[in-house]
Amino acid sequence: MSIVNRQILLTSRPGPEGPQAANFTLHEAPMPQPGAREVLLQTLWLSLDPYMRARMYDGGNYAQSSPLDVPMVGSTVARVIESNHPEFAVGDVVESGHGWQEYAVSDGSDLRRIDPELAPLSTALGVLGMPGQTGYTALMRHGRPQPGETVVVSAASGAVGTVVGQTAKMTGARAVGIAGGPEKCRFLIEELGFDAAADHRAADFAGQLAQACPQGIDVYFDNVGGPVFETVLPLLNPKARIPVCGTVSVDRNRPGPTSGGSMQELLAATLVKQLRITGFIFNDDDLMALVPEFRDRVGGWVREGKLRYREDIVEGLENAPEAFLGLFSGRNFGKLLVRVAPE
Amino acid sequence: MSIVNRQILLTSRPGPEGPQAANFTLHEAPMPQPGAREVLLQTLWLSLDPYMRARMYDGGNYAQSSPLDVPMVGSTVARVIESNHPEFAVGDVVESGHGWQEYAVSDGSDLRRIDPELAPLSTALGVLGMPGQTGYTALMRHGRPQPGETVVVSAASGAVGTVVGQTAKMTGARAVGIAGGPEKCRFLIEELGFDAAADHRAADFAGQLAQACPQGIDVYFDNVGGPVFETVLPLLNPKARIPVCGTVSVDRNRPGPTSGGSMQELLAATLVKQLRITGFIFNDDDLMALVPEFRDRVGGWVREGKLRYREDIVEGLENAPEAFLGLFSGRNFGKLLVRVAPE
Repeated sequence: MSIVNRQILLTSRPGPEGPQAANFTLHEAPMPQPGAREVLLQTLWLSLDPYMRARMYDGGNYAQSSPLDVPMVGSTVARVIESNHPEFAVGDVVESGHGWQEYAVSDGSDLRRIDPELAPLSTALGVLGMPGQTGYTALMRHGRPQPGETVVVSAASGAVGTVVGQTAKMTGARAVGIAGGPEKCRFLIEELGFDAAADHRAADFAGQLAQACPQGIDVYFDNVGGPVFETVLPLLNPKARIPVCGTVSVDRNRPGPTSGGSMQELLAATLVKQLRITGFIFNDDDLMALVPEFRDRVGGWVREGKLRYREDIVEGLENAPEAFLGLFSGRNFGKLLVRVAPE
Repeated sequence: MSIVNRQILLTSRPGPEGPQAANFTLHEAPMPQPGAREVLLQTLWLSLDPYMRARMYDGGNYAQSSPLDVPMVGSTVARVIESNHPEFAVGDVVESGHGWQEYAVSDGSDLRRIDPELAPLSTALGVLGMPGQTGYTALMRHGRPQPGETVVVSAASGAVGTVVGQTAKMTGARAVGIAGGPEKCRFLIEELGFDAAADHRAADFAGQLAQACPQGIDVYFDNVGGPVFETVLPLLNPKARIPVCGTVSVDRNRPGPTSGGSMQELLAATLVKQLRITGFIFNDDDLMALVPEFRDRVGGWVREGKLRYREDIVEGLENAPEAFLGLFSGRNFGKLLVRVAPE
């Protein structure tokens, strides 16, 4: 076993230019030692997600801030490699939240055991983890897709979008994905079974989207905000539902004029089209109530091969900062994961 | 009885400068004659409401358009002055929708009988009519005020706002009104029992509103959009509900940059604060389901003198266009009505 615990620390807050690799520092800490009723965990997989950007900033009224000079927050899949805890054995695999580091100690209270027989371990951070749960529960609770309706999702090839689009299909709706580039668009249709896709980087994006939605849009699951939102707006049908999950292009801490649309335009559309726009966080009570249903249904679809997904795997903890920053320029293709140690 | 039926016709569509008095023409039509199973109605009261502005334009996808060269649409209270209909007697008072004219013929199918004993006749167009119904049902369904919460309503001295604020009080919430000018603000507190008010024309409007809402805002019932909305936005609490009823400052047909805020700002706030923004029309199924409750509760409050209101009465049909246009500059103070004939 290693004698050091490599960690990526958040060592400075982003400046006006937004998050940079220089905000992070690779640090070698001593190996932690488990005490009584504790386990030592080795990180196998680290999840990189858009929400982490908000954590890099000083805490405002609503965002939870990540402290400086400690490992960045993050969900992980880990293996128990030492145990002084009666409920965990060496070799057990768990979902944990110990962040960007190779090892951690836990008293077990924050761990969720994963059954390696059910699905690949990494899915606990993607389609069967927080992103998939967010997509499923928010779509069902706030999007309420009906058979025959058109559901559009942005960042569609990511972990949230993957589950949103395929869940929409399972409910009998038409699924249309928005993604960056023809490769991702082809993937949505050919691999995930979306009905259509539109490339937001293409010059004729608006035309592609209109063509993909001949009956208009009944649910827009927004993962990005910005110009994509504005392109969607004219296609929304009366009483369209818009769950706003949009952490990719919306930097909460730098709400500059990243799109040309006015607040008044959105209010006028809300009024005229009777829109329902809902912001949410994944662990809201009314979403958490749907978690058992999510585990049951989406877990089943994954086991049966009915729900497909793609992972974008980066090797080695030291590459996490660069990979994380790529989330906001669309460099990743699929759920972004760091393989911290081999399974 | 008169031998002519004076009408206000819509004779042209608004140009880029918006609705003008010149879009209307006073016309003298022959008196209509009731046929078999029909009644002749004399208009007593005509309601002037913000929604009528949208009807002046050519129909788009969503707005219903008023045809040219016929009387403008509008709700009325009328008396039956001739009857060939077995279910209506001369002297009966009804709510009708025959628009801006002194007389009309009906087969009865569009009439709702009003009991003159229950409340003043004009309330059938205000606090007990469509505006009050809209305010009550949308507040309860989409605003969902809880005891101890703060409910803010704009255009608070109008018919919708009056009912929203006082209903909020009845549910145990704190009611804060936004209105134009100190006289309206005093009226909200002293006559209607609002807890506080803020004058959107005052230089320190933002400060007044913040002071009026020391615990933030849980429900914002938006009747105006625009700069008022932007002043409300920073005060909204997490999970605030925003029913968007806003026909006063939002001209659906001229959605110009009437406010400086960006669409992205509103989306970012929606995400960070988990807002629920809901556009609606008054005759939506889920609002209509609350109409019996509205008639029962608000009707009771009016009869018992617990719910107060103010009417702004204009004398004579010929003055309807000018009075109507005043709605959009805040000239009216209370529910705007035209007394077309004495009761």
